[in-house]
Amino acid sequence: MTISVAVSGASGYAGGEILRFLAGHPDVTIGAITAHSNAGSRLGELQPHLHALANRILEDTTVENLTGHDVVFLALPHGASAEIAAQLPAGTVVIDAGADHRLEDPAAWEKFYGSAHAGTWPYGLPELPGQRDALRGATRIAVPGCYPTSALLALTPGFSNHLLEGDDVVIVSASGMSGAGKAAKVNLIGAEVMGSMSPYGVGGGHRHIPEIEQGLSKALNGPVTVSFTPTLAPMSRGILTTATAKVRPGVTAAELRRAWSEAYEEEPFVHLLPEGQWPATKSVQGSNHAVIQLALDQHAGRVIVCCAIDNLAKGTAGGAIQSMNIALGLAETAGLNVQGVAP
Amino acid sequence: MTISVAVSGASGYAGGEILRFLAGHPDVTIGAITAHSNAGSRLGELQPHLHALANRILEDTTVENLTGHDVVFLALPHGASAEIAAQLPAGTVVIDAGADHRLEDPAAWEKFYGSAHAGTWPYGLPELPGQRDALRGATRIAVPGCYPTSALLALTPGFSNHLLEGDDVVIVSASGMSGAGKAAKVNLIGAEVMGSMSPYGVGGGHRHIPEIEQGLSKALNGPVTVSFTPTLAPMSRGILTTATAKVRPGVTAAELRRAWSEAYEEEPFVHLLPEGQWPATKSVQGSNHAVIQLALDQHAGRVIVCCAIDNLAKGTAGGAIQSMNIALGLAETAGLNVQGVAP
Amino acid sequence: MTISVAVSGASGYAGGEILRFLAGHPDVTIGAITAHSNAGSRLGELQPHLHALANRILEDTTVENLTGHDVVFLALPHGASAEIAAQLPAGTVVIDAGADHRLEDPAAWEKFYGSAHAGTWPYGLPELPGQRDALRGATRIAVPGCYPTSALLALTPGFSNHLLEGDDVVIVSASGMSGAGKAAKVNLIGAEVMGSMSPYGVGGGHRHIPEIEQGLSKALNGPVTVSFTPTLAPMSRGILTTATAKVRPGVTAAELRRAWSEAYEEEPFVHLLPEGQWPATKSVQGSNHAVIQLALDQHAGRVIVCCAIDNLAKGTAGGAIQSMNIALGLAETAGLNVQGVAP
Amino acid sequence: MTISVAVSGASGYAGGEILRFLAGHPDVTIGAITAHSNAGSRLGELQPHLHALANRILEDTTVENLTGHDVVFLALPHGASAEIAAQLPAGTVVIDAGADHRLEDPAAWEKFYGSAHAGTWPYGLPELPGQRDALRGATRIAVPGCYPTSALLALTPGFSNHLLEGDDVVIVSASGMSGAGKAAKVNLIGAEVMGSMSPYGVGGGHRHIPEIEQGLSKALNGPVTVSFTPTLAPMSRGILTTATAKVRPGVTAAELRRAWSEAYEEEPFVHLLPEGQWPATKSVQGSNHAVIQLALDQHAGRVIVCCAIDNLAKGTAGGAIQSMNIALGLAETAGLNVQGVAP
Repeated sequence: MTISVAVSGASGYAGGEILRFLAGHPDVTIGAITAHSNAGSRLGELQPHLHALANRILEDTTVENLTGHDVVFLALPHGASAEIAAQLPAGTVVIDAGADHRLEDPAAWEKFYGSAHAGTWPYGLPELPGQRDALRGATRIAVPGCYPTSALLALTPGFSNHLLEGDDVVIVSASGMSGAGKAAKVNLIGAEVMGSMSPYGVGGGHRHIPEIEQGLSKALNGPVTVSFTPTLAPMSRGILTTATAKVRPGVTAAELRRAWSEAYEEEPFVHLLPEGQWPATKSVQGSNHAVIQLALDQHAGRVIVCCAIDNLAKGTAGGAIQSMNIALGLAETAGLNVQGVAP
Repeated sequence: MTISVAVSGASGYAGGEILRFLAGHPDVTIGAITAHSNAGSRLGELQPHLHALANRILEDTTVENLTGHDVVFLALPHGASAEIAAQLPAGTVVIDAGADHRLEDPAAWEKFYGSAHAGTWPYGLPELPGQRDALRGATRIAVPGCYPTSALLALTPGFSNHLLEGDDVVIVSASGMSGAGKAAKVNLIGAEVMGSMSPYGVGGGHRHIPEIEQGLSKALNGPVTVSFTPTLAPMSRGILTTATAKVRPGVTAAELRRAWSEAYEEEPFVHLLPEGQWPATKSVQGSNHAVIQLALDQHAGRVIVCCAIDNLAKGTAGGAIQSMNIALGLAETAGLNVQGVAP
Repeated sequence: MTISVAVSGASGYAGGEILRFLAGHPDVTIGAITAHSNAGSRLGELQPHLHALANRILEDTTVENLTGHDVVFLALPHGASAEIAAQLPAGTVVIDAGADHRLEDPAAWEKFYGSAHAGTWPYGLPELPGQRDALRGATRIAVPGCYPTSALLALTPGFSNHLLEGDDVVIVSASGMSGAGKAAKVNLIGAEVMGSMSPYGVGGGHRHIPEIEQGLSKALNGPVTVSFTPTLAPMSRGILTTATAKVRPGVTAAELRRAWSEAYEEEPFVHLLPEGQWPATKSVQGSNHAVIQLALDQHAGRVIVCCAIDNLAKGTAGGAIQSMNIALGLAETAGLNVQGVAP
Repeated sequence: MTISVAVSGASGYAGGEILRFLAGHPDVTIGAITAHSNAGSRLGELQPHLHALANRILEDTTVENLTGHDVVFLALPHGASAEIAAQLPAGTVVIDAGADHRLEDPAAWEKFYGSAHAGTWPYGLPELPGQRDALRGATRIAVPGCYPTSALLALTPGFSNHLLEGDDVVIVSASGMSGAGKAAKVNLIGAEVMGSMSPYGVGGGHRHIPEIEQGLSKALNGPVTVSFTPTLAPMSRGILTTATAKVRPGVTAAELRRAWSEAYEEEPFVHLLPEGQWPATKSVQGSNHAVIQLALDQHAGRVIVCCAIDNLAKGTAGGAIQSMNIALGLAETAGLNVQGVAP
């Protein structure tokens, strides 16, 4: 039996990446592929790397076109996905790659997004404690943000094992340019960004902050405060997150290592690297894998955890499909058994 | 039934890429993985993107370690592969990603490589006329060079259909830095090459010239002379080849288009793009696909054909596995059904 | 005495680069700095690298604002510069970085630009035979296109010395992304272009072709036909031009070398590299220099000449200022004594 | 009167950059240019962007060759510079771009460098409080490390004005690949690093940590503890430092802004950007400028300060020449009036 899926937002980066993984998924048939202003175009014009689907024509992103599939992926601007999701049948598995249903706290939503809260869906990061179970049989799934994926994978074992203090987490992430979307903006053009790094959203304003704090606070079962600074790096893909938190008194490097090691030793996609090896974003380019390394800085009293993911893969599309697999009872790695593309 | 394969030269770029594709091949089991100076290391140290094989230990590249497999891939410096191949059983399918067995003319070999000719094996570019048949059942296969792959795919339909003159072909190619190998050289380090383009091997000295001329001369059934200039571009992967030849008197743009269209319309991996769309190397990054576009310059009397491939995929490892599939009677696309990774 | 200059189009790449060089020019005072949609902005917002001019406010690009300066630089879309230039005083030195006044043949202009010919101005490439004299005292100067600058520097010595055939020149150039302008287009954004090469304007349609043919035909004093293919490379700046032409019978490598050597030995900005060293665009990044190397391919009967320039420097702004210096009788290198920025 | 300077280590990145600035310095004559293994080579082979000095021949790095100049720049591995400096005349101005004479605490030196402390020289960062005076007339100057330059410029105004807590500074920096030196290492080659970010020296081990703590502790007049994580970014040049510290209770955003504004308002090379504009490394590429922006994160209780410099310019060679200018009583900006090269 094959599962019918529809993908909306197919002309963007998230939609394209969902299609890339789905094209290699053994259990699915790709139904409607939809877009907004690009409806009517051949997919091959907009996503010329998707050779298997080059001749598919983009339909309009409407409830009608998305209805009638077992699974619907929403890769739409926030706000748009909530509106469409509300009209899809309850039995359809709806997977929202946008932000609309990630936050549990309506006040946090309203503060950072400035609109009414659309409700909370099961959070599609199965490596968090208990989260895999929460996804089984789910019909609505909120795909985590790309930065939160990297930050939560980096720090959760330390909080869930009560090894870290929650009051002063500092995170700095570098993202490839696809994280800024497929938008015609002068400040994003290649001549501007090649050879340059720059920060944005500095000072506590980035919308992923409440999402990171929500996840870490759950892990600690107590409040966690995060300073988060995102930067844009001159590469197409990838996130390197450097996350650091104060270590509780007396915690040793060995205890830290054991916590991360145990958290991820059975995970198919998240890997604590052997000691001495540090994450590089290229080692996960195009794949659903995450690589992590940590070190205890005794002098500063902080653990530094570095996590590399592909923002479009584990950070968006890969995580979305992994969650779909769990929800539907498929093999969790189905369609995701691709290696990184390096060099 | 599963096919046992060994891969030598596994710490380099060609070997790593062969392993990347083999890791997703449904019909093979990966046996020995060998290297020279890196024997004894975990593959995960040297090829950290190959998560599925991270804990495999590299063996020494010896005849003993490679013997006992159905298929052996040689990703070795030229000279080394001929020496090992000569000692492998006749029934083993040996696929040489190096240059040793590509050229038919011993004089050309000696002129460009300066050593004794090791003999000629079936040429692993199945899209050339008649070449697919030549590969069926073959037990020795010479994988084409990366530049020749792009140049021959670009120009062969014009020569085999007698639309082009053979006396003055001009080809300029831009290759990603992986084409220069995984070698510790100051002129290859990132600080030097990022933001820079430069030519090399200018003036008729590049070793791929006789290979290109050999292929085009066969297509024309007459002599073809090629001026070829390779350049290095600031990207990790990809070749963009701009190939141009004089058009025979009276040949029209429509005739040209028809020749290329017919040559590739049934091909799973080589695509003449719709008119108006031009190849970009990124659209084939990580995949075995080649994309081609052409235009007739009436004023200059030349056809210009642009072809983009991934030098490590269709240009090396993908082509190698495609040829293996044909030789063994497997589905030609087995293990190669991956889309490009873009953006 | 200091020379008063105005720069229009100051928010674009050409205008910014003209300002960068002028900011270090000992003989000039920068007067009006103008723009179109960005009038009213601080220059520091739009050109944050021009620290010396950060607080200057952009004025509107009008004849009024540009009038009253000794020199006016026009870095405007073609068509716009001709219109403004016609209204500036005859005694003002007007230097047009656009295309409006480069071509001598009205038919060529109309064919490639589709509008009425605005007339021809002295061509600002002083290294061409006799051209330095033509620029002395000039009050109207047409700055060459970036590709023509590289192509003419590459091939002129061969034609002016009658060493090359004019009937079949083939040129392939790779340009950094700034060559495509500072425009908000999806196909130019960093995520799309990093790691990718692609051609454009293939098949004889690029507007720089008649300009290249005009220059080479003058050098040969006979017709020259050019096949030209531009490509975009993943770097911000730089052009690497690979230019090849058929060598006349009996011409030797030594004769070729002598011709280029003599042509440029006294030039302050154009350098034939020592044998064995090949041009890299990075070695001229940010500077007005051009570096050239050549090789004779006896087998193919062609000379291959590679020339690297910075498209915005020698290819636009540097060439513009060099021409201004000559026109005004200043030291030719004034304001241009900057080295390349590498690595 | 012109000042005679010698530059050692001229084949490396720091030495090349010192020569680039000196070539445009109005008050100096470049005397001996020396190297170690490259002695005897033309500079044009090793630093092909330095057209003005292309035909200079590299001499051996010996005391003899360096003696007899007014100023000697040492761009040598640590240890080597101390040895040579000890043998140069007391009256010669010796400017060490290496680490040997930066640290005041012998214990810190020995812990991080593992050798005997060579003594402390005046620290060449004139923008630190009182430091400009300390450099006047100095004959020995220690050029700050590139990361410390960015970190100290970022945070000093907050500490010297007692607005920040010293107990928990967290700094994450991204450096271009030239920061790793001009060394033939496989992990530095372009194919590996393009498209990738990775950390190194994580956990408190980087040698620039005691230097950063030394500078911040002086500013605070009390102990400052720093967690510092360096990362390598896929660009040739530039450092983006994200530095964050806890704000003392009651400190407002306005107070913070005023402190930084006052600290740098008279500085020729360090700029607090207008509100809303964030630093990008490209805006200082090739220039001695530093750009800074800050934000108060009330929720996290931290100020986040981002500083962009060119690691080879303000971070090394530019800072060295600025210090030389001060030491000799020249105009502080002499030779440094170059704008950034962008895009």
